[in-house]
Amino acid sequence: MLRLPAVVVNFKLYPQASGTKAVMLARMLDSVARETGASVAIAVNPLDFHQISEAVDIPVYLQHVDAVDFGAHTGRINVELAAEHGVSGILVNHSERRLTISDIEHIVSHARDVGVDTIVCTNNPAVSAAVAAIEPTMIAMEPPELIGGDISVSKARPEAITETINRVKRIADIPVLVGAGVKNGEDVRKAIQLGASGVLVASGITKAHDPVNALKDLVAGMM
Amino acid sequence: MLRLPAVVVNFKLYPQASGTKAVMLARMLDSVARETGASVAIAVNPLDFHQISEAVDIPVYLQHVDAVDFGAHTGRINVELAAEHGVSGILVNHSERRLTISDIEHIVSHARDVGVDTIVCTNNPAVSAAVAAIEPTMIAMEPPELIGGDISVSKARPEAITETINRVKRIADIPVLVGAGVKNGEDVRKAIQLGASGVLVASGITKAHDPVNALKDLVAGMM
Amino acid sequence: MLRLPAVVVNFKLYPQASGTKAVMLARMLDSVARETGASVAIAVNPLDFHQISEAVDIPVYLQHVDAVDFGAHTGRINVELAAEHGVSGILVNHSERRLTISDIEHIVSHARDVGVDTIVCTNNPAVSAAVAAIEPTMIAMEPPELIGGDISVSKARPEAITETINRVKRIADIPVLVGAGVKNGEDVRKAIQLGASGVLVASGITKAHDPVNALKDLVAGMM
Amino acid sequence: MLRLPAVVVNFKLYPQASGTKAVMLARMLDSVARETGASVAIAVNPLDFHQISEAVDIPVYLQHVDAVDFGAHTGRINVELAAEHGVSGILVNHSERRLTISDIEHIVSHARDVGVDTIVCTNNPAVSAAVAAIEPTMIAMEPPELIGGDISVSKARPEAITETINRVKRIADIPVLVGAGVKNGEDVRKAIQLGASGVLVASGITKAHDPVNALKDLVAGMM
Repeated sequence: MLRLPAVVVNFKLYPQASGTKAVMLARMLDSVARETGASVAIAVNPLDFHQISEAVDIPVYLQHVDAVDFGAHTGRINVELAAEHGVSGILVNHSERRLTISDIEHIVSHARDVGVDTIVCTNNPAVSAAVAAIEPTMIAMEPPELIGGDISVSKARPEAITETINRVKRIADIPVLVGAGVKNGEDVRKAIQLGASGVLVASGITKAHDPVNALKDLVAGMM
Repeated sequence: MLRLPAVVVNFKLYPQASGTKAVMLARMLDSVARETGASVAIAVNPLDFHQISEAVDIPVYLQHVDAVDFGAHTGRINVELAAEHGVSGILVNHSERRLTISDIEHIVSHARDVGVDTIVCTNNPAVSAAVAAIEPTMIAMEPPELIGGDISVSKARPEAITETINRVKRIADIPVLVGAGVKNGEDVRKAIQLGASGVLVASGITKAHDPVNALKDLVAGMM
Repeated sequence: MLRLPAVVVNFKLYPQASGTKAVMLARMLDSVARETGASVAIAVNPLDFHQISEAVDIPVYLQHVDAVDFGAHTGRINVELAAEHGVSGILVNHSERRLTISDIEHIVSHARDVGVDTIVCTNNPAVSAAVAAIEPTMIAMEPPELIGGDISVSKARPEAITETINRVKRIADIPVLVGAGVKNGEDVRKAIQLGASGVLVASGITKAHDPVNALKDLVAGMM
Repeated sequence: MLRLPAVVVNFKLYPQASGTKAVMLARMLDSVARETGASVAIAVNPLDFHQISEAVDIPVYLQHVDAVDFGAHTGRINVELAAEHGVSGILVNHSERRLTISDIEHIVSHARDVGVDTIVCTNNPAVSAAVAAIEPTMIAMEPPELIGGDISVSKARPEAITETINRVKRIADIPVLVGAGVKNGEDVRKAIQLGASGVLVASGITKAHDPVNALKDLVAGMM
């Protein structure tokens, strides 16, 4: 399982974080992890996965898998195939790729069987509590209205972080990451003080002028 | 709130339970409820709702609403509009109309605000536990492989009923209906003995040669 | 079939055009149609359909149906049920309710069989040409980036209107409505001069301070 | 562009055609293409793409891409990224992965811009005509009720093949492949006699006891 606290960087399909540039960015983030000793993971698309996973030592997640078994499923991949490829974990139910609750449960339970981590994204404390009952490896709570924005969840919605952690703990002992608008070490420090086990970040790193220093700043917030 | 134990009849889009025939069927089921004193509700499509709700006294649910607020949403209805039309409740997340967990939470919390019941459908104990954290009015657990089939959940999967009820109760005190393959009073009696608060039934009534006697048999299982 | 040229008003799920207010708005638009002799139709949600269709003489369309036959389809309605309820037509594939090409073809061919009009929405000339091959009653081309905005398709994209009509005519003789940002009679006049058979409008009427005068202005552009 | 006539083998997510086994199967099919001189292409999932494309000379397609540009699209890949990875073509709108007509048009036009082939799947002659207006590289018509079955489209629905080709040709000069239930050289020969430019096949090869001989038999039907 991912060492906590951790910074998980979602590459999305950003031009700065796809194809050849994704491999270069992954290498940069890998070097920061090695240098600082911080726990850093990345979530990439399946076409880029192979080359990235060969280039870095940090855990590489997929951004999505489908809730299907092997069979007649054109255009789908599943967690068993991801495991065969050596994927460390799966980002599940991101706000840009929402799933049904049955599909989340299918993916989480199959991932558990094949030893792959799951980070299930949620949008508020109530949904986080629901997901806790399914027992993924981690939960990442991101208020949708703050995703991609300039103000971080730590500053804008500290009470949502606290309430999420409290409601989740009542149901199962599952680490909670938070995300949305996370940009600097101060945002991370605040999140961790509120009880979070790390952050999920995307544009704050992938679109940063200097991703290496942006990540160094973030991980400093975990120390 | 729906009086429990209850039989909830999902009309789906069965030819025997749509349009003019839906109004006739609703009247038949209404007469059984009146005659037996049993708690019976029906779930209908939105085009048929108005004429059915004027024809019967039993609670009339919609089979689905969308998780949207009023606004630019062509081809959608929401729970606030359903409430204005006097809908008693909403069937949410049926296996033929699965929703994301965020949308389920949106519908359930908005329905609570406007005083409309929600029955959230689930497919197994783990998903039922997740949904319990969202606190709908009721949960209806239906193993998908048994829906529309000849053997009832009570007979084929009694342990799934027991486990669902146990896992739900640990999270919140929410009544659990069960469904899939329910055909007769014996199926209902068994379900209630296992701790269920009623059944969700579709083809067992809508496609019955004699729906009045089929429903009488079912409700006898609740007495 | 809808008399052309026509103004088709999409009520969406706007608060000003849902529930009791939808019935009032429909009556207002109906009176304008009667007074001016213009061809006006409205597209409403299925819960409001019954009361609106009893209140007005203008054609009432649904904003969406599903591409299913009668059967085990919880939370769906189809065109056959719509026909039984006396629906004049169906808005298909609106940008807020996109469908697969197979589903569009299913709905259009079934609607033809039961004598219900179809207006299939498209987003550009190429997609309009594709839809023409399926032979709906009408096509409504709306550049998505202009929907709900302040500048009309007639002014912002006249060449898209001309190209759409040309490409559609090469495949089949199907009337083309245009929409997006349509606000006044001048927008309508321009569209008709470019060869359109009318307009599809939503917020320009539903959110107008005075819908009666807003519609009078629009239909004046058709005279 | 793919040399025609061709056999396109869809690996789907069959256990015999995923992961390490997919690389082995691709090598076998590659050897048949080399030995017979026949035009053979394969469609694979994005996780397996990299290793397969390094192992074979035949064209390797993806089974699906999303209709998005680069940006904040977690869990999506697009045709531009596919092109950067050296993908030969994209299977679009397979019956197990249907798309909206706007998305099909988006993918086809972007693929054209980056020099990647598209095979758009359709379910009948009318939908094939619609897709022809969008001008993909090829169309693959597969009656859904025959997919994965024991009787081939060539035998069960020869008139659907003829009508599809006729309706497509009236709109644009686009090669038509056919698929569903294709199992042997006779099925291929019949399809080509009816005017098809090849076949799309899946279980007939991937689940064959001896895929090499199964493919040899198929390509013999093209000679």
